[in-house]
Amino acid sequence: MVDDALSAAIADLTPQLVAWRRDFHRYPEPGWCEFRTASLVAEELARLGFEVSVGESVLEAASRLGVPDEDTLDGALARARQQGAAEPWLAALAGGMTAVVGVLDSQRPGPTLAFRFDLDALPVVESSTNTHFPRRQGFASVNPAFMHACGHDGHTTIGLGLAHLLGRGALSFAGRIKLIFQPAEEGVRGAASIAAAGVVDDVDYFIAAHLGLGQPQGTLVCGADGFMATTKLDVRLTGQSAHAGGRPQEGRNALLAAAHATIGLHAIGPHGDGVSRLNVGRLTAGQGRNIIADTACLELETRGSSTAINDDMERRAREVIAGAAAMQNVEVDIIRVGAADNCGASPELVTRLADCLETTSLFEHIIRHDTAPIGSEDATSLMARTIAQGGQATYLILGTQLAAGHHHPCFDFDEATLPVAVESLARIVRELTCSS
Amino acid sequence: MVDDALSAAIADLTPQLVAWRRDFHRYPEPGWCEFRTASLVAEELARLGFEVSVGESVLEAASRLGVPDEDTLDGALARARQQGAAEPWLAALAGGMTAVVGVLDSQRPGPTLAFRFDLDALPVVESSTNTHFPRRQGFASVNPAFMHACGHDGHTTIGLGLAHLLGRGALSFAGRIKLIFQPAEEGVRGAASIAAAGVVDDVDYFIAAHLGLGQPQGTLVCGADGFMATTKLDVRLTGQSAHAGGRPQEGRNALLAAAHATIGLHAIGPHGDGVSRLNVGRLTAGQGRNIIADTACLELETRGSSTAINDDMERRAREVIAGAAAMQNVEVDIIRVGAADNCGASPELVTRLADCLETTSLFEHIIRHDTAPIGSEDATSLMARTIAQGGQATYLILGTQLAAGHHHPCFDFDEATLPVAVESLARIVRELTCSS
Amino acid sequence: MVDDALSAAIADLTPQLVAWRRDFHRYPEPGWCEFRTASLVAEELARLGFEVSVGESVLEAASRLGVPDEDTLDGALARARQQGAAEPWLAALAGGMTAVVGVLDSQRPGPTLAFRFDLDALPVVESSTNTHFPRRQGFASVNPAFMHACGHDGHTTIGLGLAHLLGRGALSFAGRIKLIFQPAEEGVRGAASIAAAGVVDDVDYFIAAHLGLGQPQGTLVCGADGFMATTKLDVRLTGQSAHAGGRPQEGRNALLAAAHATIGLHAIGPHGDGVSRLNVGRLTAGQGRNIIADTACLELETRGSSTAINDDMERRAREVIAGAAAMQNVEVDIIRVGAADNCGASPELVTRLADCLETTSLFEHIIRHDTAPIGSEDATSLMARTIAQGGQATYLILGTQLAAGHHHPCFDFDEATLPVAVESLARIVRELTCSS
Amino acid sequence: MVDDALSAAIADLTPQLVAWRRDFHRYPEPGWCEFRTASLVAEELARLGFEVSVGESVLEAASRLGVPDEDTLDGALARARQQGAAEPWLAALAGGMTAVVGVLDSQRPGPTLAFRFDLDALPVVESSTNTHFPRRQGFASVNPAFMHACGHDGHTTIGLGLAHLLGRGALSFAGRIKLIFQPAEEGVRGAASIAAAGVVDDVDYFIAAHLGLGQPQGTLVCGADGFMATTKLDVRLTGQSAHAGGRPQEGRNALLAAAHATIGLHAIGPHGDGVSRLNVGRLTAGQGRNIIADTACLELETRGSSTAINDDMERRAREVIAGAAAMQNVEVDIIRVGAADNCGASPELVTRLADCLETTSLFEHIIRHDTAPIGSEDATSLMARTIAQGGQATYLILGTQLAAGHHHPCFDFDEATLPVAVESLARIVRELTCSS
Repeated sequence: MVDDALSAAIADLTPQLVAWRRDFHRYPEPGWCEFRTASLVAEELARLGFEVSVGESVLEAASRLGVPDEDTLDGALARARQQGAAEPWLAALAGGMTAVVGVLDSQRPGPTLAFRFDLDALPVVESSTNTHFPRRQGFASVNPAFMHACGHDGHTTIGLGLAHLLGRGALSFAGRIKLIFQPAEEGVRGAASIAAAGVVDDVDYFIAAHLGLGQPQGTLVCGADGFMATTKLDVRLTGQSAHAGGRPQEGRNALLAAAHATIGLHAIGPHGDGVSRLNVGRLTAGQGRNIIADTACLELETRGSSTAINDDMERRAREVIAGAAAMQNVEVDIIRVGAADNCGASPELVTRLADCLETTSLFEHIIRHDTAPIGSEDATSLMARTIAQGGQATYLILGTQLAAGHHHPCFDFDEATLPVAVESLARIVRELTCSS
Repeated sequence: MVDDALSAAIADLTPQLVAWRRDFHRYPEPGWCEFRTASLVAEELARLGFEVSVGESVLEAASRLGVPDEDTLDGALARARQQGAAEPWLAALAGGMTAVVGVLDSQRPGPTLAFRFDLDALPVVESSTNTHFPRRQGFASVNPAFMHACGHDGHTTIGLGLAHLLGRGALSFAGRIKLIFQPAEEGVRGAASIAAAGVVDDVDYFIAAHLGLGQPQGTLVCGADGFMATTKLDVRLTGQSAHAGGRPQEGRNALLAAAHATIGLHAIGPHGDGVSRLNVGRLTAGQGRNIIADTACLELETRGSSTAINDDMERRAREVIAGAAAMQNVEVDIIRVGAADNCGASPELVTRLADCLETTSLFEHIIRHDTAPIGSEDATSLMARTIAQGGQATYLILGTQLAAGHHHPCFDFDEATLPVAVESLARIVRELTCSS
Repeated sequence: MVDDALSAAIADLTPQLVAWRRDFHRYPEPGWCEFRTASLVAEELARLGFEVSVGESVLEAASRLGVPDEDTLDGALARARQQGAAEPWLAALAGGMTAVVGVLDSQRPGPTLAFRFDLDALPVVESSTNTHFPRRQGFASVNPAFMHACGHDGHTTIGLGLAHLLGRGALSFAGRIKLIFQPAEEGVRGAASIAAAGVVDDVDYFIAAHLGLGQPQGTLVCGADGFMATTKLDVRLTGQSAHAGGRPQEGRNALLAAAHATIGLHAIGPHGDGVSRLNVGRLTAGQGRNIIADTACLELETRGSSTAINDDMERRAREVIAGAAAMQNVEVDIIRVGAADNCGASPELVTRLADCLETTSLFEHIIRHDTAPIGSEDATSLMARTIAQGGQATYLILGTQLAAGHHHPCFDFDEATLPVAVESLARIVRELTCSS
Repeated sequence: MVDDALSAAIADLTPQLVAWRRDFHRYPEPGWCEFRTASLVAEELARLGFEVSVGESVLEAASRLGVPDEDTLDGALARARQQGAAEPWLAALAGGMTAVVGVLDSQRPGPTLAFRFDLDALPVVESSTNTHFPRRQGFASVNPAFMHACGHDGHTTIGLGLAHLLGRGALSFAGRIKLIFQPAEEGVRGAASIAAAGVVDDVDYFIAAHLGLGQPQGTLVCGADGFMATTKLDVRLTGQSAHAGGRPQEGRNALLAAAHATIGLHAIGPHGDGVSRLNVGRLTAGQGRNIIADTACLELETRGSSTAINDDMERRAREVIAGAAAMQNVEVDIIRVGAADNCGASPELVTRLADCLETTSLFEHIIRHDTAPIGSEDATSLMARTIAQGGQATYLILGTQLAAGHHHPCFDFDEATLPVAVESLARIVRELTCSS
């Protein structure tokens, strides 16, 4: 039986999956700085026979959002070199061009099937308690300010696992398979630039997947429809300082403008068409108590249960910020540092995948569509682009046991989910490319 | 002795002074609606031989501030007719053109000397307690919503008293005397239009006077320098209503804009060069609790111990209002309904008047300059215009016993101050026109 | 056929329905002032053989919300007398005790079935355009400030129509029928007091109905589940006035507190469990521009897609108001002037009514449950009470052609809907009391 | 002539004055961290024969304001050791007890005369431009984050210069001389603790002095009366974080509370009795854009032209902060990190000093009283304490040529002012202790 062969291959692969995952976990890299991770992925894909593209050919530089400054990028590149990056790929990845796409062509007629995996870690300090599994097993982060606290180390591992099955011939398929390793999913900053580069324009089926997200071990969601459209904005206000005791009338108060903007932003009304959100999560302003503050920075996000609602929220947010700045006669600069659409899964594809996976014993519980709000995710931009050019797309949630919630210093998932995830994607490959 | 003759004439005149005052008190008229009062003043001045000008010739219509709407003006005119206005003058006064200027020329060489008296009453409901003197004596207001609660009935009376002395020959003088009866001093709305009409452009000495203002009976201030420059603004915000439960995103919230503007206005910083003030004293907005409010009105004022400071405050206020409106995307209309400058008295004139009046027994205590802040007064605009074209100007405060503070329903001054005031002005006429 | 007999009886009754509706429309009375309407309803019910209770026996005085002041109540009572109220009932209705309940007992075993009809009009000035049907037909409001702009004139008429069929024997039934005519539905002020009086505590089936609400002629909603829980609050802030120019530090600024409260209220965050709303719809504050305002009033409402969410919103609103008052050291008084719960319809009852009415030709389109948000309605309080003591309850929407939206000066419904509505309720009576 | 001897002694001393000044400038230490400076001062005073007290005996620990945390204090102490501090004194100074008082007793009857000098530097990065004199001469700060940018290096030098004259017998006197070297004048944090320790309780004449402050070389102000009373407050707000997209209702938003507080603070009205000021100069809040912020910090100051006005401002500020915190149900902690009174100079003392110094050729222009507002200074607390127990006190301003304004990275004063300053104080010693 072909399935037994697949299962056996995956069983053989499992120690490697764990090794990959722990290596990525040990060396977390934040968005646009995934130099080590991306280079190792590219190296492995090439070794497995994939046609590998990195950097500018799969990433439109101008469409990247929230790219760190050059010093940060340079420092991250240097660190990646010290931590074992694959040197040949670094030149093309340098400067925050950290996308990798591997294509394997069966040379047989069939659809083009794309999977998206995300590479980046979070600015979270990993827990140092002994009960934390990565700590206990010695693979906790060695990059002090960063941590894989959302499972992207697992996602990258699953992608490599699938590549291994495909490249080593353990999984036969027709058509072409395109594995997309995306930078900067955190802050919804990376997918737009991959979409803009046309990477999914020839794709018939697009699939993204995430571990956890509130689903227990044994549960699969085939169509996660609850991601909210979102925009992330940084606001810089610049006024004029003055001595607060002696010459207050000469100041133009950026701190006061920021306070007015903050309250005005939170007072933007709800939306009759669905769920909307806005949060100013950080505010820093001023130099000293006796000086009228001449600078202020706000970090905020809008969300909407539809892209139209989020667009309304962003438009209103910009009005409020501009008005608050005008109240204090201060200059304002609004920078879009992240954005994602809302995009529902393609119903036919969801049905097909659910029907297929229900014939296996991989999951105890399969949910077809789940519309409960679950934050934001920029794979939606790739889904929307796929659907816009006639393809189908969906987003899977692979339930797993979590030690703590996403983004928490104690976050950890059950590594036993890794082979299940690889097998699920393998069966989807077979279903979508061989079953006609 | 000439002084004895003057004193005797004033003693004879005193019953008439009281009669005039009580008549004006009984029929109070608010700013720009002083049809009865102005027409009776004009009639009397003409009878006394003055050359009388009213309406457009002494008032630039476009420079009037805070003029009521036409219905209000028409209603006030009709009431004035019923209450004994002097009909021949009404056509020229109609529509809120309620200024009267009387000129008496001695036909002898000499300076032009102008006195300003204000005509208008306040929107105050007069006290009905029995201890209130006008009530007890039967001359309380018969116009229910209005009251002479600031002593302008007294000022107009003093003006007529002085006119009587001059017109009847009890007070000899050289040069020309110009008596200016000004509408709408309350809210600092009237003087600018008289200045704009050029009424003081030929004046060598300009003198205004006020009863009370915190000074006790027997005290005279010769140069009241403490009036703050001020601007009175009405703000109308217009947005878009919407059902607050169902379609909140379709509203443009004028009430919220008004709230932002109010707080932003009060948060305008102080001024390093002197005293500044801002107050939003009234705010009305919205129709019902379940509707996003589409209208809001603010009534506010700025003040400054100098005109430059007040100008800064007005400029900042306009910035804040425009910014707050922009925050909510509502339209805004800012109407200047009152304005007065800060203007110090001419030191030579103050010295001359103080020296002159110290030789009399009219006052126990004469203060030359008083710079303590005492609200605002638009005679300052006439003072500034006089000084700008080379003349001298001052503002007197005639102390008197008050029953209650200015603008209070129980306000009343001591009528015994009226002949003292008339004699003071008479002596000033003599000092400034005969003493060279 | 019994149905033909019912139809014939309704056809005979139709001119009377139109007459009743136009009479009520002509004499609109706002909430707690429905003296004429309630007395005429009571008179008619008594005439038809119902046992009639009014005032205190069916209304807990202390649970009434948003009752006008005594002068208003007295004036409304006097006007009702002039406009043909039924005198015998007025003593019991006086003072805003304007509920009427009529009970008809079949003397046969069976359930107790209650219908709720609302009596009150709105503070809307009725359109005077010629195209407005009530104007053209001469039955427009003669009470200038008020109008039946939400169809309650129709609801009361439908109630009397049903009473007529029952009282005149055209509609046989078992058990007991209780017709509840409720005051002050507008502003969700009346139902709580009827619930508190125990009026529905013996009810097995409770049914309320509304004309229009966005449904077209020929459509019936059997279970309107979309009403949001809501609270209506009036807020009075009391500070201390002071002269804004001279003694600003002596003021305690109620206007500024109101502005802070307003923005803080609108800035209350959304709710993760469902829809929430808050609106400050009216704000009035202050006396004059040069006085620190010592009084301010806010009118606001909260809403939630569940009672729990609305409770959270009300709790947060009270926190914000108290804090804003404390910022300015002003006193605050919060008055609850309206409240309604969210209450879903009983599914079994909805199914039963829909199944029954689908066998008739009364409607082209029957919707069973409709969860789309449709504002708020205090019949939910009576539904919740009915269900809490073991009964079943639902809320019907009877589609009709509207001339303009609810609460609009041109609102009008199609009178042809009246006999359809009466027949629908008649068939429901038969279904629920005879069909076992 | 005795004056010639004094002048000669000062001429001899001048190179030492410059050396001291440049040494202190090179090693700037911020408030409560003046370990090197204070220890060297103590060492020198002891060497000159003064009875020296440091630390707890002249400083009430609990009355210190704005003391840095222990790590900062420890780090500063370690650095002081490396930079040549006088070891014997460090134990008593450790932990931010950096006051030094030296007393010299003439053993002859006479008054107790105290001088106050301040020791601390500012958190300013010194200019690295070549035109900056300390840079050019090689004595710029070697402590990168700090700079003597307000002249306290000069003040300490003047104190040592006066000590030298007294200790070496170049200046004879009666009574006792008390030289107070105060920490943490910047931020008005230090004087209160010296006053609380009773250091000036036996003082007959108290004199503080400052270089510059806007006065040109050659000018002396004998009574600087324009210091405003002030309070420096740090505010910490603590709420509850929550995911802004998923569970916003679970957050208690400290950032929003801070924004409300900020605007409310700036909207505190002006004061009718004199000048008032308030500034929120720094605001930091929140962790990330998708999290409801649970922490916020404000740094603010109030000022008043009298202590009563500043007290009113502080009271109002606390009300506003407490109210804003209550609006968001967040906890609040307000820490007083600095405070100074307004205190006018003793008129008799000013007259005596001015009369005395006018007989010298030290100054071209002597101003007796100057009431123009010039920021705040906590020597006022020592002045007030001196006056309260029956002594006299004043504050001198010694004009000097400045390279840039106080607190500017290019600040520098003319070292030629140092011997003039020492001679002025020497003559004051003689005047106050010998001239009776």
